[in-house]
Amino acid sequence: MPDLPKKISIVEEGVREGCQIQDPPIPTAQKLELIAALSETGISKIQVASMVNAQRVPGWADADEVLERLPAAPPGVSYSAVWLNDKGFDRAWRHRDKLAFDGAISAPASEAFLLRNQNRTLAQNFAEQRERIAAYKARGLAVDRVGVMAAFGCNFEGEIPVPRVIEIIAQGMDLAAETDCDISSIVLADTMAWATPFSAKRMIDAVRSRWPEVEISLHLHDTRGMGIANAFAAMEMGVSRFDASLAGLGGCPFAGHKGAAGNVCTEDLVFLAHEAGIETGIDLDRLIETAQLAEQIFGRSLPGSVMKGGTLDRFRK
Amino acid sequence: MPDLPKKISIVEEGVREGCQIQDPPIPTAQKLELIAALSETGISKIQVASMVNAQRVPGWADADEVLERLPAAPPGVSYSAVWLNDKGFDRAWRHRDKLAFDGAISAPASEAFLLRNQNRTLAQNFAEQRERIAAYKARGLAVDRVGVMAAFGCNFEGEIPVPRVIEIIAQGMDLAAETDCDISSIVLADTMAWATPFSAKRMIDAVRSRWPEVEISLHLHDTRGMGIANAFAAMEMGVSRFDASLAGLGGCPFAGHKGAAGNVCTEDLVFLAHEAGIETGIDLDRLIETAQLAEQIFGRSLPGSVMKGGTLDRFRK
Repeated sequence: MPDLPKKISIVEEGVREGCQIQDPPIPTAQKLELIAALSETGISKIQVASMVNAQRVPGWADADEVLERLPAAPPGVSYSAVWLNDKGFDRAWRHRDKLAFDGAISAPASEAFLLRNQNRTLAQNFAEQRERIAAYKARGLAVDRVGVMAAFGCNFEGEIPVPRVIEIIAQGMDLAAETDCDISSIVLADTMAWATPFSAKRMIDAVRSRWPEVEISLHLHDTRGMGIANAFAAMEMGVSRFDASLAGLGGCPFAGHKGAAGNVCTEDLVFLAHEAGIETGIDLDRLIETAQLAEQIFGRSLPGSVMKGGTLDRFRK
Repeated sequence: MPDLPKKISIVEEGVREGCQIQDPPIPTAQKLELIAALSETGISKIQVASMVNAQRVPGWADADEVLERLPAAPPGVSYSAVWLNDKGFDRAWRHRDKLAFDGAISAPASEAFLLRNQNRTLAQNFAEQRERIAAYKARGLAVDRVGVMAAFGCNFEGEIPVPRVIEIIAQGMDLAAETDCDISSIVLADTMAWATPFSAKRMIDAVRSRWPEVEISLHLHDTRGMGIANAFAAMEMGVSRFDASLAGLGGCPFAGHKGAAGNVCTEDLVFLAHEAGIETGIDLDRLIETAQLAEQIFGRSLPGSVMKGGTLDRFRK
């Protein structure tokens, strides 16, 4: 077994994911307040908007306004946005003074999910990825990740076997090689919360064995309460990159059922890491205050545990 | 590392823990309804009442009435009650036709917690344990466990070092040897939710190295969201006995802060085990229905995840 990582890095997705499903939408000023507070916690990568169809996702109808009013990221922090098509990319590009762009090749492990979510076949997806790589290169941007949605299972397709995931990543890596993209990380996204720590370990092991030089990053949803256990299992396998969500905000609007929860909770993940002596660069107390601010803004109890239970340092002698 | 257990056994504590802190108290008939539903899920050990001071714990003022009205446990199921002193033991003993009695020697890792919770020093505790063993023997009952409260840390004492836990267990084992009690399990209770999967593994390893012939059982609280990760880490260490709480019901009234959560959620734990091919003897679908019944009875959203997110089997092809 590899050593625990000395440090993990976290991409904060709470604002983006949380606002996506909130009805009525969170006002622009409060989105900005939450992003500003997050930017002071030591988190270095923050998703600040979703450039998607306002009809489908009214919670981000104000994405352009958020980006217009957003101050430049403070030193050491970078902001990014999410989109699903060229139109979204063009919208984000207009705000390039404030956003970081690191391109990914999307290699979904489930065609059924892809059809349902984006109305595309796998073949159409890879054709589109080719175009997107060209669009990235035309703008001088690097494409350095392969992202695998539904990497652990799919509500529309069922179990996704490990060889299927390896095969789809291989297709993404082949496309990267053909187009001269240097891939530094593979993102395994548990889009519909199928992973358990047992299956996560098996998948991480298989992917690492095939591409030992590429870093693995995990995007974990907490719908079945396995998020922290999965992150722990991944840390034990040496994984050092995680997406996470402040206070456990979020929920996938496309997962096909109402119980879908947000990403693994950022402050619970940071607590886990710090208790093991793994650095995050994040001030956990400030992060907890920010999670409490999120509860005020969203006007309801959010799933995070450490924001309610507190850290242990105050009890230590 | 030992193999995963083939089967785990679970002691269900949800009704006992949940009713303990509920205000206003859950009516007797609904307690009985929930116990009856739990008894049909395949869970074999269920705590059905708390024989404690009705002034301090009004939620169990009706403990005697619950036990009077409770039908005999169905085949394969045993009921138990919890108490803190001789008076409680005497009350429980009156219902011995319906209750199982397996005695434990209490060896708390934190004297500060013991003083706060039960107003006793460690020396007073061991003197009292001696009397309790005698009372057990006088009734023909076995004492077969050593239970360690605050085994992973204490809100009143801080960090509890591994050697301290080993020392207190050794005192309990010495007392057992002196009094001819045959100890088959050591219960490590994370009473105030200090454990992380990293520290859980270290503690389990140390206890097993010292007493390799004795089974380890875990009592995990989920206040900091680590419950399932801790259970996973323990399963990886071969641990096969867990206390758990339907829907995550509960919260320790003595932990010293309001954020204290209940035990690790039973149905989330069963989901984790089943996904790894570990048997529990429990019908997960029925258990989830029972967790949903608990939400109706308690009249609020409860912490469990799988009861909301659902199992994966319905999606499998």
